Amino acid sequence: MSILVVGSVAYDGIETPFGKIDRILGGSATYISLTSSYFHDSLQLVGVVGKDFADSDLQRFKDKNIDLEGLQIDNSGKTFFWQGKYHFDLNNRDTLDTQLNVFEKFDPVIPESYKDASIVCLGNIAPALQGKVLDQISKPDLVILDTMNFWIEGAREDLNKTLERVNVLIINDSEARELSGEPNLVKAAEKIQAMGPSTLIIKKGEHGALLFTETGIFSAPAFPIIDIFDPTGAGDTFLGGFAGWLARSGDFSDDNLRRAVIYGSAMASFCVEKFGPERLLDLSATEISARYQEFRSLSAIPVQQDNVF
Amino acid sequence: MSILVVGSVAYDGIETPFGKIDRILGGSATYISLTSSYFHDSLQLVGVVGKDFADSDLQRFKDKNIDLEGLQIDNSGKTFFWQGKYHFDLNNRDTLDTQLNVFEKFDPVIPESYKDASIVCLGNIAPALQGKVLDQISKPDLVILDTMNFWIEGAREDLNKTLERVNVLIINDSEARELSGEPNLVKAAEKIQAMGPSTLIIKKGEHGALLFTETGIFSAPAFPIIDIFDPTGAGDTFLGGFAGWLARSGDFSDDNLRRAVIYGSAMASFCVEKFGPERLLDLSATEISARYQEFRSLSAIPVQQDNVF
Repeated sequence: MSILVVGSVAYDGIETPFGKIDRILGGSATYISLTSSYFHDSLQLVGVVGKDFADSDLQRFKDKNIDLEGLQIDNSGKTFFWQGKYHFDLNNRDTLDTQLNVFEKFDPVIPESYKDASIVCLGNIAPALQGKVLDQISKPDLVILDTMNFWIEGAREDLNKTLERVNVLIINDSEARELSGEPNLVKAAEKIQAMGPSTLIIKKGEHGALLFTETGIFSAPAFPIIDIFDPTGAGDTFLGGFAGWLARSGDFSDDNLRRAVIYGSAMASFCVEKFGPERLLDLSATEISARYQEFRSLSAIPVQQDNVF
Repeated sequence: MSILVVGSVAYDGIETPFGKIDRILGGSATYISLTSSYFHDSLQLVGVVGKDFADSDLQRFKDKNIDLEGLQIDNSGKTFFWQGKYHFDLNNRDTLDTQLNVFEKFDPVIPESYKDASIVCLGNIAPALQGKVLDQISKPDLVILDTMNFWIEGAREDLNKTLERVNVLIINDSEARELSGEPNLVKAAEKIQAMGPSTLIIKKGEHGALLFTETGIFSAPAFPIIDIFDPTGAGDTFLGGFAGWLARSGDFSDDNLRRAVIYGSAMASFCVEKFGPERLLDLSATEISARYQEFRSLSAIPVQQDNVF
C-alpha cells in the first residue's frame, strides 16, 4: 500500500504573537507527507519547487524516505511563497504576501511508478488540478481531499466534479457551511455526503472534529493545549496523520476511521508546538503513541458495572 | 442519600424561531429537581412561589415525588416571571421582561428534615443566598453550584466567599473566562479550581463540555441534534442530570464524574426538544438509557488489537 501526496511545496514567512520567522519550509504536500512518513514507508510526493529550493530542504524529505520522483524542479522561477500574520487569538490570520511563482503553471504529472497508489491525498490546490491527478491514477483504494473557501467560491463547478470522485473530504466548519449552504453541521454533512464523499471530516479547531460516515457520527475531542505556538499546517498535518494511520493499518472500517481521526488530531497537536513543520521533523514513535493515548483518555467513559439505568 | 435543590421556581414567557408560549413553568430549581427525579427518589426543593402559582404546577412536582416542604408560598405577591426571545441561531436571547415579584425578598429557609442532605444543588441565585443555604446544612457530601455573569460582575465578593465552600462549579465558557480573567480555558480552569471548587465543568453549548478534576480533563461531546426547539433550562437540566446520577450511584470518583457529565448532557439534549420543561415531564428510563448510550458511542474509540504504534 502506498500513499500519493499532491499539493504545494513552499516557503512560508510566519508571524505569530510568540515569534517571527522570515522563511521556513511549508506547503500542504510538505506537511502531509512529512506527517504520513511516521506511519508508513511508501510515500510519494507530487509537486513543484523553483530554482531557489534548498538542497537542505530536499534532504528533509529524503531523510523521511519520501519518494521525490514526482517533485518537479522548475528552474524558470522561484518556489511558491506565502507570508502571513496570526492575531492574538490564533484563530484568524492575515495573508501579507502570496507569490505563486512556479506554482502558477503547476501541471501535476504522475510518474509511472506512482500510478498504482492505494491512498491518494489531494492537498488544497485548484479542484481542476486535483481532478487531473485522479485521471492519471489507475484504481486507488481511497481518495482524500482537502479544499478551502477560495475554491468553493471561485471554482465551484470544478470542485463539484472532483468531489464526485472522492471518498473522504476534510474541511473546517465554516467551509462545510459554505459548501452546503446549511448552517447546521449535521444537515450540512448530509448534503455534502450526497455530493460524493461518503466520509466527511469537519474540523472545528479548538472544539475538535466530527467524522461522518455512512453509518454514524463520531465526535473527536480537541487536545486542551495550553500554548499554541504556530497553527500553520495543522490542517494538512491532520490529513497526513489520518491517511498515514489508514495506510499503516490497511483497515478502512468505521472503527478504524475513528482511530485515524485521533491520529490526525494527535499529529496536528504536535505541529502547532513549534514554527512551521519543525516539530514534525523530530518526532518519535513513542511520543506519537503517548499523545494518541492521551487523546483516547481525554474522551474515554469507563463502562459502569452497576447502578445502570 | 438525598438531593437538596435551591433556586428559582418561576413562570416563563418564551419565543423561539419555532414557536411562542406566553406562560409556562420555569426556574432553575424546577428544571434541576424535575430532572434529578428520574435518577433518585429523595428530592427536596427549596424556593418561593406567589399566590398565582397553579395547583396543577405544584402537582407536576408531586407527581415526581419531589418533597415540597421547603417551597414557600408567599401570598403577598406573584411568582417570579421572565420573558425572553431567542434569535435564529438560538445561541443568543433577549430578555424582554423580568418581574422578580416574591423572589425579590426570597430568604431560603431549610426545613429541619432537609438539613442532612447529601448533595446540595445551588441553582443560579444571588451568591449570598447560596451561602446562606450552606450555613444551614450540617455536612453535605457534595455541593454543586451554578452561577452567571450577572453575579460574577455584580456580586464578586459574595461569589468568592461561596465558591470556597463548593465542590463542583458548573458554568459556561464565557463565564469561565470572565470569572478567571483568562481566555484560555485550561488556564481558566486552573485559576477557578484554586478559588475553591476542586471539580469544574465548563459547558460549551454545541461543542460539548469539559470536566476538570484534580487528576485530569474529560472532554464530553455534544449531541449533534438536528433541531433544537427551545434551549430554555438546558443548563439547569444538565446540572439535574449530573447530580441525579451521582446520587443514584453514590460514587464521586473521577470515572463516575465523567458518566455524570454524560447523563447531564443526555438530559439537556431531551430538554431542548420541546417548550420549557415539557419534555422533562414524560421521559422514560428506557429513553434516558438509550440517549446515554448514544452519547457514549458518539465519542467511543474501539481499542485496536494490532498495528499499534
